[in-house]
Amino acid sequence: MTIRTWLKWTACLSMVAVIGLAEEGKWTPQQVLQLDAAWLRQQGLELPVSRLWDPQRGTGLLAGTVSTGGCSAGFVSATGLILTNHHCLFGVIQENSRADRDLITNGFLARTPAEELRGTTTRVTVPRKFTDVTREMEAGIPSGAGDLARAKAIEAKQKEMVAACERTPGARCSVAAFEGGLQYVLVESFELTDIRLVYAPPRAIGEFGGEPDNFRWPRHTGDFAMARAYKDGKPYQPEFYFPISRAGVKPGDFVMVLGYPGRTMRSLTAEEMANEREYRFRLRAEFYGEWIRLLEESTKGSPQGSIAVSATLKSLNNTHTNALGQLAGMARGRIVEKQKEQDGQVLAWAAQHAGHAPAVEAKKELDRLAEESRRTALHDFLLQAIPNGPLALKQATTLVRLAAERPKPDAEREPEYMERQLSRLRATLEREQKSFYQPADEAMLAAYVERALKLGAGERIAAIDQRFGGAPVREAVSRLYQATKVTDAGERLKMFAESTEQLRARQDAFLDLAFALEPELRAWQTATRTHEGAVARLRPQWRRAVIARAAKPVAPDANSTLRVSFAHVAGYVPRDGVFYTPQTTLAGMIEKHTGEEPFAVPPIILEAARHVKPEQIPLDFLSNADTTGGNSGSPVVNGRGELVGLNFDRVWENVANDFGYNPEIARNVNVDIRFFLWLLEDVEKADNILQELGVKR
Amino acid sequence: MTIRTWLKWTACLSMVAVIGLAEEGKWTPQQVLQLDAAWLRQQGLELPVSRLWDPQRGTGLLAGTVSTGGCSAGFVSATGLILTNHHCLFGVIQENSRADRDLITNGFLARTPAEELRGTTTRVTVPRKFTDVTREMEAGIPSGAGDLARAKAIEAKQKEMVAACERTPGARCSVAAFEGGLQYVLVESFELTDIRLVYAPPRAIGEFGGEPDNFRWPRHTGDFAMARAYKDGKPYQPEFYFPISRAGVKPGDFVMVLGYPGRTMRSLTAEEMANEREYRFRLRAEFYGEWIRLLEESTKGSPQGSIAVSATLKSLNNTHTNALGQLAGMARGRIVEKQKEQDGQVLAWAAQHAGHAPAVEAKKELDRLAEESRRTALHDFLLQAIPNGPLALKQATTLVRLAAERPKPDAEREPEYMERQLSRLRATLEREQKSFYQPADEAMLAAYVERALKLGAGERIAAIDQRFGGAPVREAVSRLYQATKVTDAGERLKMFAESTEQLRARQDAFLDLAFALEPELRAWQTATRTHEGAVARLRPQWRRAVIARAAKPVAPDANSTLRVSFAHVAGYVPRDGVFYTPQTTLAGMIEKHTGEEPFAVPPIILEAARHVKPEQIPLDFLSNADTTGGNSGSPVVNGRGELVGLNFDRVWENVANDFGYNPEIARNVNVDIRFFLWLLEDVEKADNILQELGVKR
Repeated sequence: MTIRTWLKWTACLSMVAVIGLAEEGKWTPQQVLQLDAAWLRQQGLELPVSRLWDPQRGTGLLAGTVSTGGCSAGFVSATGLILTNHHCLFGVIQENSRADRDLITNGFLARTPAEELRGTTTRVTVPRKFTDVTREMEAGIPSGAGDLARAKAIEAKQKEMVAACERTPGARCSVAAFEGGLQYVLVESFELTDIRLVYAPPRAIGEFGGEPDNFRWPRHTGDFAMARAYKDGKPYQPEFYFPISRAGVKPGDFVMVLGYPGRTMRSLTAEEMANEREYRFRLRAEFYGEWIRLLEESTKGSPQGSIAVSATLKSLNNTHTNALGQLAGMARGRIVEKQKEQDGQVLAWAAQHAGHAPAVEAKKELDRLAEESRRTALHDFLLQAIPNGPLALKQATTLVRLAAERPKPDAEREPEYMERQLSRLRATLEREQKSFYQPADEAMLAAYVERALKLGAGERIAAIDQRFGGAPVREAVSRLYQATKVTDAGERLKMFAESTEQLRARQDAFLDLAFALEPELRAWQTATRTHEGAVARLRPQWRRAVIARAAKPVAPDANSTLRVSFAHVAGYVPRDGVFYTPQTTLAGMIEKHTGEEPFAVPPIILEAARHVKPEQIPLDFLSNADTTGGNSGSPVVNGRGELVGLNFDRVWENVANDFGYNPEIARNVNVDIRFFLWLLEDVEKADNILQELGVKR
Repeated sequence: MTIRTWLKWTACLSMVAVIGLAEEGKWTPQQVLQLDAAWLRQQGLELPVSRLWDPQRGTGLLAGTVSTGGCSAGFVSATGLILTNHHCLFGVIQENSRADRDLITNGFLARTPAEELRGTTTRVTVPRKFTDVTREMEAGIPSGAGDLARAKAIEAKQKEMVAACERTPGARCSVAAFEGGLQYVLVESFELTDIRLVYAPPRAIGEFGGEPDNFRWPRHTGDFAMARAYKDGKPYQPEFYFPISRAGVKPGDFVMVLGYPGRTMRSLTAEEMANEREYRFRLRAEFYGEWIRLLEESTKGSPQGSIAVSATLKSLNNTHTNALGQLAGMARGRIVEKQKEQDGQVLAWAAQHAGHAPAVEAKKELDRLAEESRRTALHDFLLQAIPNGPLALKQATTLVRLAAERPKPDAEREPEYMERQLSRLRATLEREQKSFYQPADEAMLAAYVERALKLGAGERIAAIDQRFGGAPVREAVSRLYQATKVTDAGERLKMFAESTEQLRARQDAFLDLAFALEPELRAWQTATRTHEGAVARLRPQWRRAVIARAAKPVAPDANSTLRVSFAHVAGYVPRDGVFYTPQTTLAGMIEKHTGEEPFAVPPIILEAARHVKPEQIPLDFLSNADTTGGNSGSPVVNGRGELVGLNFDRVWENVANDFGYNPEIARNVNVDIRFFLWLLEDVEKADNILQELGVKR
């Protein structure tokens, strides 16, 4: 038997050992402390649970897990080093790249702290405290309030608590709703704003496999990068960080995935899930698919255009592929149909259990709301798509809204336009110039307008009708771009500071379009808030019955707060006749090497691979952790709390996991820390960093 | 643990158990009797070796294995029932299909013997005796003969022996060369010509997965059909047939694959292998790829055209995909490079071992011959491609050659034109009308001519130059088809009987082209025979050293004679991170069902599947048998000689297996007999046949 065969066999075996243990759940820090300690030990946790999280001091394993706002990351040294995914630090890498110093293509390594590269795009928040504020929240809602008033009261109360919390210098706070408002938690963190790039592999490694491999297995992507957090100009010293394990993982090993999963929808009713399927994912698949085609066509033959749209394209591609995966997974797993059965069971249970009558009524009302929202679903989709679409439209609507919000007292503004957000907003408006390429922007807007002009009678967008109703759309769009200064970075930053009157006085075509859209956007947002107010009233009643019937801990839907998933390294059966083994190696990367993007292994890596046995350099691995978007960059640690990898993706079959956990295919994709160490050691000879990480041989 | 998981795990485990046992070799009946009986028992053979083959009486397991001339097949009842692949009986199915009775689409079942369908295309030969005639062959070669004389002497001697052998009524004989002439064996069989169709599944089952799945795993193809052999109007009663096993196979089980593998090239030198790669497979990939495109384009929108070219297209596609697989496999397995190393080792060994000096000299000469044949490789490729190309050209050259050969005494004719072949040849010329579609034929010829016109100075084809040198090729080709009667089936059959003078007198444009090509074809064939004569002189010397150095039994290259491969049911690792489990089920077929060809499961099957657990109906399985083209339809039997499946393909990674056996990826694809039984039982309710097969519940 060859070594290789033996490894594969072990992989198979481990699958079996693991299946029985697989567990659903993105647990909150509070829940972790309530879980059965014996069960956790049986899973493979070698530390006492108390080491995971100390609610009094706000520290423990979990405190080493930070958020970059969209991604997760982990401290890995006492001197502020942070590891996360390559794509999570892409902004800093891009910012520091120039024609003569192409860090994206070549990667980057700071050999001394002085060489580290500052960025403006990355901030990191470190968790400190979680406080249940459900009672305060509920007390803040006037009895008998209508749904819109309820939504406003909730928002006002949240702002009030956040403001109070952020009086502590450096604090960054939020109030998170769990189970649709069954529980509210005040999350207190503190923010580090001086984050400097220390190491990034070449993009060909960090994004190896690109779109063709995205969401796929087997995977061979070295999706990591490293930064250092500074505070007051000195390396930040975290109270907790993850020591790096040189031992790595093998099939069947216990791992924990720590991070900030963004949003899942398992608590929705079947009717609501069906709406998500039809009006979120099917429309994304269709409309974003068209935008992707247009971006590719309009930049063909223009290297400058291709570079400009690359970030937008990547983001759209990711959302698009995800949508296709959700659709395929929902169909394959019969998720809506199964949820319908479960809903029915809960309804029957609630009808027979005292105190749960309101759940029956709530379910009926939730169904009515779902029915109602179908009527303007296309219209609503188009309005909410603006931030993902043509930059000029996005920026114009942002500037108009900002001018309207700024005169208000801070607490009355929309959350995105409050004082605390303005420096970020300005940075975004500045940075976006790098992504602007007019032919692509025009093509996207034209497609947008064409769709809006086809809306049904009950859901027309008047501002679009007025502006584009008559003329050929492409020409009208071109005229719009000729008559605007929104697309000029300097002018745009001036606009950032201007009042509504000043913006109107400019008679800028795009700003005028945004002014025309503004009342419709407001009306839509008001309708959305009313809907949210109703759901905030109904969902807790329904979920209370669901949880009571389950009679065991239920991990709440993801909401960008800190979570832990307990898992094991395991392969899976994607289809009849195929078993995906849970670990890949450098040999597989070389096997995929064609020399052409995204399968071009850099020569320096190929050369280094000649001096090792590539099949012995682990690269990526699968585990059955319960993850979603936002878990990118999540530290993956073993039972002793040592870092063994970073989460960076889910497999295709598991995308619809957001709606329901299926232990047979629930697999997340991690990059193995040993690949990172091999690169630092054999390719970069980065002794200084290995030393600092405490793993220098 | 779910049942499914358990099965998958067992699959994994079995792989490990098996790897150590995997053995290269397509063994001849004579070799089987010489193999170590203890080793065979250890492999899993439960029968005494003597039951496999009795050289005296010409019977045993192996005698149940018959040849259809191109495919293998097996007797499965005492009443002449024969099982083979669907694609091996496709001719009979096609012959009996009419617009109002589409057996290709709907399948066919004879509920009584009276309903069985006669065909003209299928004959079956049953093995009877193998006699070593090496000494006689060698005695027939005049000492000091040149290479051409040697080739002719070998052919003459072969004809003489075949003629003597076929004096027995019904006998069908051949003289097969092993190891390039190190051994010659007279193969005596007898022929059954009355073969009637009993059962064929719908094409959607028999070819499920079509081109996309061809050579691929996981596979879900029900590639089988059943016929009955008649002799003197009565069902033929074979002395041996394979009882059908209801138990089937599981991972790790021992199986034997019996059949008539066509041609492998493992005994070639590295230089010769490189020639095969460059001038057989690379040219096929390129040129046949073009023909495939042209066939598809020229029949687009014409159902009649599509039906006509379907068989040609299927055959070209198969050859083309095979060529791509050979190229990929040779590159991936570094086959030529490894052969070069081995050649070097044998050379070094031969130089040091008394009696093997001729091997060193032979190797040098073989290399020189390989070098020489490169010079006209493109020219030679085009001439040998004629039988696979436009039908009119193929038929015209056949008719012209036939007229030239027929006047000769039978023994002096080319083997294909001897009296014993003429009825087959005529049937082919008649049948081919079904495959003729003029626009497609013209497009293929034009592409052929274009390539010929681009040949280098040293290898021009004068007949093509003269006919097509000046005018635009497409127009010249059209004129050719307007001025010929070769494409008319009735006229063509008249031509079949005509003399050279009569054919010339017709002044038929295509026949005239064939007359112009005739001397070039003769010259090329003479050169080829000279080359073969030289190789027949050299190869045995070289192979004698190779075999002596191996110091263990070496199975000779396939040469369309009866062979056995001992194997086990086993999955494999196609690439890093993936393990292919060795069995698929009906559930996987349904998983692939899209409703569109070639993934359209017929409604009757979908309906039947609703009443069973599809994941419990086995469909296809992998084993590590050593197979090649010609093994299609091979009975796959367990250690007790019971039929468990039929071989029908190899996996993609294993196509270059023809040049070298790699135990890690050497996997053949079999259809599980239990799927056949399920169709007969649950779908067709064919009690009569189940009864006859002795498996009625």
